[in-house]
Amino acid sequence: MSYTGYTDAVMLFGDSLTEAWSAGSLAQRMAEAYSRKLDVVNRGFGGYNSEWAIPVFRQIIATKEHREKGMAQRIKLMTIWFGTNDSVLEGESQHVPLDKYKANLSHLVSLVRSPMSPYQDPQTQIVLITCPPVMEKAWTAHLAKVRLERGESDVNKPSRSKENARLYAQACKDVAEQEELPVVDAYAEVIRAAGGDSEDQLAPFFTDGLHFTAKGYEVLFQALVKTIADSYPELDQVKVQRRMPEWSDVAVDQNVINIALDKRNRGEL
Amino acid sequence: MSYTGYTDAVMLFGDSLTEAWSAGSLAQRMAEAYSRKLDVVNRGFGGYNSEWAIPVFRQIIATKEHREKGMAQRIKLMTIWFGTNDSVLEGESQHVPLDKYKANLSHLVSLVRSPMSPYQDPQTQIVLITCPPVMEKAWTAHLAKVRLERGESDVNKPSRSKENARLYAQACKDVAEQEELPVVDAYAEVIRAAGGDSEDQLAPFFTDGLHFTAKGYEVLFQALVKTIADSYPELDQVKVQRRMPEWSDVAVDQNVINIALDKRNRGEL
Repeated sequence: MSYTGYTDAVMLFGDSLTEAWSAGSLAQRMAEAYSRKLDVVNRGFGGYNSEWAIPVFRQIIATKEHREKGMAQRIKLMTIWFGTNDSVLEGESQHVPLDKYKANLSHLVSLVRSPMSPYQDPQTQIVLITCPPVMEKAWTAHLAKVRLERGESDVNKPSRSKENARLYAQACKDVAEQEELPVVDAYAEVIRAAGGDSEDQLAPFFTDGLHFTAKGYEVLFQALVKTIADSYPELDQVKVQRRMPEWSDVAVDQNVINIALDKRNRGEL
Repeated sequence: MSYTGYTDAVMLFGDSLTEAWSAGSLAQRMAEAYSRKLDVVNRGFGGYNSEWAIPVFRQIIATKEHREKGMAQRIKLMTIWFGTNDSVLEGESQHVPLDKYKANLSHLVSLVRSPMSPYQDPQTQIVLITCPPVMEKAWTAHLAKVRLERGESDVNKPSRSKENARLYAQACKDVAEQEELPVVDAYAEVIRAAGGDSEDQLAPFFTDGLHFTAKGYEVLFQALVKTIADSYPELDQVKVQRRMPEWSDVAVDQNVINIALDKRNRGEL
């Protein structure tokens, strides 16, 4: 069978924190880390919560049926990073109650792992990521501007709380433990890197009190790389093989390229 | 048929200038520009020339047979950016004679466009990109260090020339004209942005006399975006539709997600 064109991938599934392709973002850093090894597929959807993630999942993951026909890219690693929007205060349209958030995360995991799931893929390794801390005052001030532009009333009404970020981060860790999955504790990692959780201390890590600067993503990325190396060593960016010969080998014998293709078609690469 | 998991893509095909996923690179800027619209698939292979690109092409593009079975991601746009390595001086292992370079570029184009090609895809739009100018002295100095580390002799022997960069850039433009394809003249664009082609003028655009800084990529990216908008307006990043509903619409009616999936499965999205 001739090559179908795709290579194995890392899928980043989440909200706006995942969606960003900016310089220094998680996606950019992961794409650089896995360059020529695994494609990084960004499935971040700004504003989405764990509830809406479930129907979206059907649109981003191939079914077993397709995979068995060799019709789909293999997802070797999937990061699931929801909770930041679930954790908005009750009454906000994105809010998902804590227990429902936990159930949703478990459901997403089961869609990948359960033999009953049409999307099951035993090859897909999962890493959960918790929501980061939030800068209440900075975010409320930012949101007030947005609401003013939208001509909304009650622009200074808080939509998020420090405490909720902490609770939803803990809930994500609880699900990880229950599902026996590795988790990146973005909440704790950022506070550790900041030296505390005051708004002054957190300021360098956030653009608007909620979304990461490159410095914030750097902390998350380093923690994710370490988690992958510890939990899934075969997926450690330094261990995954590059999928095309080095040019210096091609210069000696151009046929190494075709040999690589033949091996791939025989499933040896 | 349930969703096979992939979305349409932009493929960046080329050498190390394409391969880079660093902050500010072409790939990062394109991925950001087409975020949630088209996947950006990086098929850059450092050190490769147009000769080696041909067998590689078979490994990165699905056959018609697979596409017709709905087994492959559709490549809506492909940038082909070779020439920088072809243009090394005669005697260097990457060197490809000018006429052969032109024939290779035409061959790559025919693999996408010719009805005789098993890889033909009428949906794939092509943009050629020329090699940029080279800073002879800076590159020779950089290479000398690398050769010393490798314990090679004759470390100061020049491997590239300003004149060859100009000739290979012109050759790429000749092929574009002959194939009636849009071309990004990276050579002219960078010299224009630099205000001249002296090494002092070009310095801010290159890390080592050959590879782009973020500032160099910015010039290339802006020229590419304009070329796409002019030649393939339907692929203009501002015109391509985002492929998942906005969260604010989902908040009103979560079913918009499933409606989008059904439309996609009917080929309407």
